[in-house]
Amino acid sequence: MAELLNPRPPAPDDAPRRPRLGVLGAGQLARMDQQAAIALDVDLRLLADGPSDAAVLAGAEALVGDHGDLDVLREFASGVDVVTFEFEGVDNALLRTLEEEGHRLVPAPAAKLFAQDKLHQRRGLGEAGFPVPPFEHARTAVDVAEFAATHGWPVVLKAPRGGYDGRGVGVVADAQAAAAFLAPLPDGALVEPALRIERELAVQVARTSDGATAAYPVVETVQHEAMLRELVAPAEIDDALAAEASDLAVRIVEHIGGTGLIAVELFLTPDGLQVNELAMRPHNSGHYSIEGAVTSQFEQHVRAALDWPLGSTELIAPAAVTVNVVGPEDGSDPRERLPAALAVQGAHVHLYGKGARPGRKLGHVTALGPDVATARATAWRAAEILEGTAS
Amino acid sequence: MAELLNPRPPAPDDAPRRPRLGVLGAGQLARMDQQAAIALDVDLRLLADGPSDAAVLAGAEALVGDHGDLDVLREFASGVDVVTFEFEGVDNALLRTLEEEGHRLVPAPAAKLFAQDKLHQRRGLGEAGFPVPPFEHARTAVDVAEFAATHGWPVVLKAPRGGYDGRGVGVVADAQAAAAFLAPLPDGALVEPALRIERELAVQVARTSDGATAAYPVVETVQHEAMLRELVAPAEIDDALAAEASDLAVRIVEHIGGTGLIAVELFLTPDGLQVNELAMRPHNSGHYSIEGAVTSQFEQHVRAALDWPLGSTELIAPAAVTVNVVGPEDGSDPRERLPAALAVQGAHVHLYGKGARPGRKLGHVTALGPDVATARATAWRAAEILEGTAS
Repeated sequence: MAELLNPRPPAPDDAPRRPRLGVLGAGQLARMDQQAAIALDVDLRLLADGPSDAAVLAGAEALVGDHGDLDVLREFASGVDVVTFEFEGVDNALLRTLEEEGHRLVPAPAAKLFAQDKLHQRRGLGEAGFPVPPFEHARTAVDVAEFAATHGWPVVLKAPRGGYDGRGVGVVADAQAAAAFLAPLPDGALVEPALRIERELAVQVARTSDGATAAYPVVETVQHEAMLRELVAPAEIDDALAAEASDLAVRIVEHIGGTGLIAVELFLTPDGLQVNELAMRPHNSGHYSIEGAVTSQFEQHVRAALDWPLGSTELIAPAAVTVNVVGPEDGSDPRERLPAALAVQGAHVHLYGKGARPGRKLGHVTALGPDVATARATAWRAAEILEGTAS
Repeated sequence: MAELLNPRPPAPDDAPRRPRLGVLGAGQLARMDQQAAIALDVDLRLLADGPSDAAVLAGAEALVGDHGDLDVLREFASGVDVVTFEFEGVDNALLRTLEEEGHRLVPAPAAKLFAQDKLHQRRGLGEAGFPVPPFEHARTAVDVAEFAATHGWPVVLKAPRGGYDGRGVGVVADAQAAAAFLAPLPDGALVEPALRIERELAVQVARTSDGATAAYPVVETVQHEAMLRELVAPAEIDDALAAEASDLAVRIVEHIGGTGLIAVELFLTPDGLQVNELAMRPHNSGHYSIEGAVTSQFEQHVRAALDWPLGSTELIAPAAVTVNVVGPEDGSDPRERLPAALAVQGAHVHLYGKGARPGRKLGHVTALGPDVATARATAWRAAEILEGTAS
């Protein structure tokens, strides 16, 4: 038996049993799941690394263990009604074993693989006719050079598995750089052209096992050093493009049989929309929804995972902007500046309880407004105070 | 040492210490405090009755003990930066002892007494010129009859201490009934006329120790069997009356030196506004603010208690209506009907994790809308489904 943190008491015999929602992972996404689960009286149980994980600090019950250990996964799955996720990096073969043993996973492993393996995603979606960038599976620098001969240098190389926030992705300008990138990757990499990206868009889609779907408005994300820095809801694009992006996202989720809460990340290029990545869990691009939508992505995740009716995805203000709070270079902790940030009226501050390290996501700020410029100004003002860069 | 539930790990030496906010009580109000505390990375610590308390089930750290035991209170107060409340019924003399021993209480015991002792409140506010109903301290049925000779039967008798949700309040029509009411009250009761109440209003006011205040819009509450049933924000009254109520509430809070989050409950009578009760903690009349105001009363409670800048109290929609979910007569549990209630688009359901008993507050539903009628219809539809009375 693994260690159990924040254990809940057994329910009295005559009480209806609370639904028990499992989440593999205990970081900030599970922390915000916990806030949503409290309102719906759902018991969250996490698989955590330890007592200082962000969601454990928020009081969710947590089994401590290694998600790479099948016995730990079995013990975890046996204690919950459904297994969901807050990250992608768990071995799909282990998930398939759990599924074969009768555990309910949302999404199912076959769908989850589209978020875990970029090559699988490109092949599967490309064959089904969804717009994916040109790609090849490059095992050697020669493969990369051949691809570049057609599409031009530089090219983008992506490790098929394990990357996030830009890790596992490289832009390489010649065969020598390609060889260096491929050296630690015995199974090769995905090679793609360096797309001319006009905007990065994302659509949150919730789907239950009976096929009900609910799509959130299309949002635009702005990356900095490959990490999401700012997100704007709704994206400032024309209605036809928004409808196309939303329709594309829903069709992809349906095609792969995705369930739960899924973020479909898209590139807008001169050639139109292209699929970037899928995230099969609440995602940074949906954080605005806590205050900005009728139903937050975290409550929607709980609803979808339990096959409950999905909530309204409407925005409750004309615009919402979220800015991530990143650990500043001087190593200082944004928490020290929280009171000053709270003086910014209309800024909704979320801190994750994580130790401060330069470049680490430590929280976010959302502001609503009558227009994007107003919401953006409010959110940035509070974020800059927290990061210690306010003038 | 009392038992500690959901213990948090000690912070690493190099991490800034999280503020530790104490709450005496661990019911639904502390449960909603917990949701707000997570976002601001504040550690809540509760004084609880046991592991099944609503806020303990939400994962807040809790010391189990009796709030009537000074040693328990001392241990509790020593573990937190500030002691706040989710109820009124704790011995004021014990609170004064804690204060004398150097603990920080929000509100301070001298202010808290205005919420704990109705006679003290009427005398203190009456002498200061605030509009309170005519009253006397009746020790005997003769005292009551004398009061009735001036003001007419029936009269209202109120136990000075310990009542809530209508408990400890009686409407008596003659001296015999008065004697029966007074029999278990050796210190007598407050006697007041049976006011002609046109509306019941409430104003949430937050105040920090440096005197900053923030008042929420005036709300109207509708009681059923002396328990709050519905609340409407903003109250449908004219602007002048709303301004008068808001000003009155702020002046009362300032006069008594109240700090933290305080609900001022008012009666609108043919003679104008009269003070009803004060609640020195988040209050049922402010539940709409979770979705309906920029800053929820629970986040505001955290901010005020820690002397942080107060948040905006603006409404984010033209109207918000909250309906309490009460345990139905058949003893069934509203949780069984949660999925059906979630199908009501725009209904924000909050369940408190409490065991179902007829007449017990088990949750609430809030809906926003372009007008009160729309919000009310949505909130009631979901509440009636939960209570099993939907047609």
